[in-house]
Amino acid sequence: MTTVKQGKALNIKDSRILIAGAASLVGSHTADLLLKEGAREVLLLDNFSFGSMDAIAHLQNEPRIKIVRADLMRLPDLLAATEGVDGVIHLAAYMTLGFSQTPWQAVDVNIRGAQNMLEACRVNRVKKIIFASSNAVYGYGSGIKGALSEEIPFHSVGAPPAAILYGASKIMGEQLCRHYYQSAGQDYVVLRYSTVYGERQHYRAANSLYIMETYDLVRKGQAPVLPGDGKDTKHFVHVSDVARANVAALQSTATDVAVNVSGPAPITTGELVQLVLEYCKSDLKPEVRPDPPGKVRLTSGGAFHIPHDKAGEVIGWKPVVQMREGVMRLLAWREQQDS
Amino acid sequence: MTTVKQGKALNIKDSRILIAGAASLVGSHTADLLLKEGAREVLLLDNFSFGSMDAIAHLQNEPRIKIVRADLMRLPDLLAATEGVDGVIHLAAYMTLGFSQTPWQAVDVNIRGAQNMLEACRVNRVKKIIFASSNAVYGYGSGIKGALSEEIPFHSVGAPPAAILYGASKIMGEQLCRHYYQSAGQDYVVLRYSTVYGERQHYRAANSLYIMETYDLVRKGQAPVLPGDGKDTKHFVHVSDVARANVAALQSTATDVAVNVSGPAPITTGELVQLVLEYCKSDLKPEVRPDPPGKVRLTSGGAFHIPHDKAGEVIGWKPVVQMREGVMRLLAWREQQDS
Repeated sequence: MTTVKQGKALNIKDSRILIAGAASLVGSHTADLLLKEGAREVLLLDNFSFGSMDAIAHLQNEPRIKIVRADLMRLPDLLAATEGVDGVIHLAAYMTLGFSQTPWQAVDVNIRGAQNMLEACRVNRVKKIIFASSNAVYGYGSGIKGALSEEIPFHSVGAPPAAILYGASKIMGEQLCRHYYQSAGQDYVVLRYSTVYGERQHYRAANSLYIMETYDLVRKGQAPVLPGDGKDTKHFVHVSDVARANVAALQSTATDVAVNVSGPAPITTGELVQLVLEYCKSDLKPEVRPDPPGKVRLTSGGAFHIPHDKAGEVIGWKPVVQMREGVMRLLAWREQQDS
Repeated sequence: MTTVKQGKALNIKDSRILIAGAASLVGSHTADLLLKEGAREVLLLDNFSFGSMDAIAHLQNEPRIKIVRADLMRLPDLLAATEGVDGVIHLAAYMTLGFSQTPWQAVDVNIRGAQNMLEACRVNRVKKIIFASSNAVYGYGSGIKGALSEEIPFHSVGAPPAAILYGASKIMGEQLCRHYYQSAGQDYVVLRYSTVYGERQHYRAANSLYIMETYDLVRKGQAPVLPGDGKDTKHFVHVSDVARANVAALQSTATDVAVNVSGPAPITTGELVQLVLEYCKSDLKPEVRPDPPGKVRLTSGGAFHIPHDKAGEVIGWKPVVQMREGVMRLLAWREQQDS
């Protein structure tokens, strides 16, 4: 049994919650859930550089929603936005592709952006911040295998620089939270998402992109590509489960803690491709092919899984959407986009 | 035998070398050695916020020395300073104490500062950059023990946030070097210094500070303090050996590689205190005492040593100053300061 430090818990019904990086897959689903749980107000903060208005279009006319155009690099924006706010869910971040393509912006947003938000929360006495971290804090190096529990170190040997930069930036974001907890009593919970997928999927994340790329190939009648032998493991988590974890973390008394947020079970690349073929009712055969040189893809480096037992103990959360159901929901949404 | 990528080598005699963060322990010794090796010009860049003119006072009237007041946060400063420069030794950084006390500046300098310098090197076609990293990239967590060879992962569990932030910032600095190598062909060598000590020692580094604090206590006739049981291991490296490593890395053809730079052997805290007592000809008995709460000190968490064999293979370097000799030299210098 994990000993959990006790801090402030939020009653969603009484609360004004700000989501940073809200015009996104996780942001929009979390906003939906907060509204359903009766939140007094949900502030959707985004600079819309990556975030898309499409992701939150369905919320625009909801009276309890307030859209805030602001930039994490401008502390005054955040000081204004967090006034009177009870809880913040900090999602905004560049991922591995961003560190590869636009490393300056990625450094800004993932580190200084997190620091600015923590400072704004401190100044405005925001009760709790949920910081979206990632299983990238365990790295993508050659030593990664087995259970990636919350205590394992950061493996980087063999990984591309952008992947290591992303993981290290998340480690820094987490530690900036700890620093604010220790120096200013700022309550926080770190959630280390595994690969998020689901309806309103964007094309930016290196891992979940694979489901979309496979679908697009199959729909064009082309054989899906299996990198390596198809036995690479991925551990996804459905976006609706992530939204539930965000809300559970706000509601719990837990503070100064980091927990994994992963789906019910991992899946191999081969099994994943089969699910896509099944959805598409296709009898195409996957083509085994090594990645082209320079392609940024996060290989797992071997069989692993990401336990989420600690999240159960600490914030009373566990995932409910099985991979099969989640992929079917995602692809049904994807298909609808084309029609 | 390590396979080493081949890049540009510098002939020191023909070269203009810029040291960033030069008004420092490592900077001043490296400048001394570069002059001795016949460098055409040595540019000492510092913003003098931490760096002290005292450290480079002896170099001020040397015609081959140019002092450049500039700030790593201003890219134009670096673009101007690196014009016509052949090699850069990038030392400027905040350490664990800095991340604890001034985390905003520490994030700026260690990450954006490194990024700015790499960009300036790229633009001005600087042949090679030596990036000063640290054994902090292996972390200070509870899992640290044994040989800290270049492949081990980053251990953070149990470490204070400032120590983890420092280590992660160095990981990011290293990976920004790799990114510039891959995207722009920028040659670099990462040197992971262990704890540097030596003449012109400042009082800013959490570990080497211990030698100075012990000396100061003994000189006041007070018992030196042994945290824990005195069996904690430290692995120091004398600043003159570090200066030799910096120059060797510039001279070697090695590129896109990271190597440890550590002293001949580790030492326990107890042995270290004995060396100080011996120097002071004191028969004071060390007092075993746990640290006060909140004190930032980097415990080793158990016996470890930092092998430097790879540095031998890659840049042809090995340390020559034994701990006994180094401590005696440091304390002789320290004593002279008071007289």
